[in-house]
Amino acid sequence: MEKDEHFMQLALHEAQKGRHQTWKNPLVGAVIVKNDQVLATGYHHHYGKPHAERDAISKLTPEQLFNSTLYVTLEPCNHFGKQPPCSQLIVDSHIKRVVIAEIDPHKLVTGKGIATLKENGIEVTTGVLNAEVKKLNEHYNYFYKNDRPWITLKQATSLDYKVSAGLNQRTAITNQEVYEQVHCERADYQAIVIGSSTAIIDNPSLLTTASTDYPPIRIVLDRRGRLLEHLDLTLLNDDNPTWIFTQNKSLANHNLNQNIQCFLTKNNDLSDLIAELSKKEIQSIYVEGGPTLEKSFLDNFFINEMITYISPDFIGANGVSGTVPTSSHHFDEVNIKQLGNNVRIDERNKNV
Amino acid sequence: MEKDEHFMQLALHEAQKGRHQTWKNPLVGAVIVKNDQVLATGYHHHYGKPHAERDAISKLTPEQLFNSTLYVTLEPCNHFGKQPPCSQLIVDSHIKRVVIAEIDPHKLVTGKGIATLKENGIEVTTGVLNAEVKKLNEHYNYFYKNDRPWITLKQATSLDYKVSAGLNQRTAITNQEVYEQVHCERADYQAIVIGSSTAIIDNPSLLTTASTDYPPIRIVLDRRGRLLEHLDLTLLNDDNPTWIFTQNKSLANHNLNQNIQCFLTKNNDLSDLIAELSKKEIQSIYVEGGPTLEKSFLDNFFINEMITYISPDFIGANGVSGTVPTSSHHFDEVNIKQLGNNVRIDERNKNV
Repeated sequence: MEKDEHFMQLALHEAQKGRHQTWKNPLVGAVIVKNDQVLATGYHHHYGKPHAERDAISKLTPEQLFNSTLYVTLEPCNHFGKQPPCSQLIVDSHIKRVVIAEIDPHKLVTGKGIATLKENGIEVTTGVLNAEVKKLNEHYNYFYKNDRPWITLKQATSLDYKVSAGLNQRTAITNQEVYEQVHCERADYQAIVIGSSTAIIDNPSLLTTASTDYPPIRIVLDRRGRLLEHLDLTLLNDDNPTWIFTQNKSLANHNLNQNIQCFLTKNNDLSDLIAELSKKEIQSIYVEGGPTLEKSFLDNFFINEMITYISPDFIGANGVSGTVPTSSHHFDEVNIKQLGNNVRIDERNKNV
Repeated sequence: MEKDEHFMQLALHEAQKGRHQTWKNPLVGAVIVKNDQVLATGYHHHYGKPHAERDAISKLTPEQLFNSTLYVTLEPCNHFGKQPPCSQLIVDSHIKRVVIAEIDPHKLVTGKGIATLKENGIEVTTGVLNAEVKKLNEHYNYFYKNDRPWITLKQATSLDYKVSAGLNQRTAITNQEVYEQVHCERADYQAIVIGSSTAIIDNPSLLTTASTDYPPIRIVLDRRGRLLEHLDLTLLNDDNPTWIFTQNKSLANHNLNQNIQCFLTKNNDLSDLIAELSKKEIQSIYVEGGPTLEKSFLDNFFINEMITYISPDFIGANGVSGTVPTSSHHFDEVNIKQLGNNVRIDERNKNV
């Protein structure tokens, strides 16, 4: 059992190498072992490219594969997607035993890959390092279990809980370390959501500094169509995709940059937004404000995670307050990290 | 020089043993060395008891003391206080050399102890581990250099910067670790200051759990005399001293418990309070709220240090906001510490 955990740890380490490049696919790592020797490792490098099992298997000869054990972090797939099914490849390779950390929550896969392996006489062990591996694809898992995206709210406040020095003022509240962390963690999400005020006042580009071919889609909630008066915003003119949710038909029908997609909504309900994003298979969103939008998310309990960056300065009475929900909220898990003289408080509810 | 620092480090370690028991006196440690061997150590144990130098010297014979080196964290005194002057004792002991970390800022001492030693042919080295030793008696140093107490504001807030769940509601915002830390750090101050609202709503005892014969004096600022309607408060009936600053003559003349002292003030200016506390030789105060009182301190720039405890929960819109000063404030030094799932942010201005 300790051996299994050791090799699965290697597979987990492999999986992480694909970070930010597998897009809608999960991170997966694989290790092939015979006589306690690692013969090959592999991982899912990139969306559309071979799965981890295939990556590892392709490095070995039939003789090497014969009677070997495959460690893989996620249940092998059993269906034709961008790649032929891994379960059949494993069977054909005459691998003797497969050790799996996590059952794939994706409805097309769950349990079926394991069934195929067992039907073909392969010994299957599941659940090894399950808790650690589950964290690897938290958003993917959540999305396929709950049919809705993982929602993280992010805010950056002063000690006296101000998010800007005054109305309509773009203010850098937190320090350079926070700036860098935010620009990097954006890549962990498939979309970034902001309100129209934040778009107009801050004119952010909402890009990520992480190396990824799949930067998050920028989503602006603009019920009234205020963006029509601000068509010069960076978000509406650069080369990255932006989605606008609006009730304003003029905006929805306006001839915008080809990277921009407008969604004409009927009401102002966040549940409509979430439903639409679920349909579009957006597995995770990072809500970057402002405070009014975040309050709506909190008040509707559409929250999985809250990230607050705090600087130790006071902004004073003219500042605009951070988000204050209508009622109290407690989160199950809290992680605190110091970034220079700023603090990051990351809190989340236990996954359903 | 490295030897000097080594022995001074020992003296610093000795000094800390007197923590919370030397009251208005500084913490001081001493080490006596001959031929690189430590012959004796000593420290100031308790207010009114022998100074560190005397404590160490008393452990040795005249032969041992002859030609030895004394390491002492603070300049030896030269005047009769509760104890006869240490400078003369050192001369009489035929100590050859004295190494001092810090010159005593107390006007009755500063430079005079060293002068006496030098006049008597003793070799004197100063400034060894000066920065480390200065931190030992930060409040004492500040008081004697600036003729006013060191002022620390303390607050405990939720993530959304609330200090209570609603008006007139006593609320435990932060966790047990914070509770214990606050109860202990109170002993680092000579007085605790609160407003009358905090006294009435929270009915706190403001005691310390630290072992000390000199718990801080509780000070209530009660301009209007609201305490007259609340004479059953714990603060006004237990065995510890409480001072009340009021403009209400009935309260000032009221026949209160013998531990209570009333100060009749002419106006509502914090500078009057500070002047009175300076006169009473209160070296340091810990202001525990409420937010309105802390705002006054911040707006008048009467601040040396700000301690904010933050819990990760949201209280919501009915909560009472933490202190928001009129204008912005930046502090020079910031220290961040995690206490369970709470955070302590300690920030201070560079000492004058």
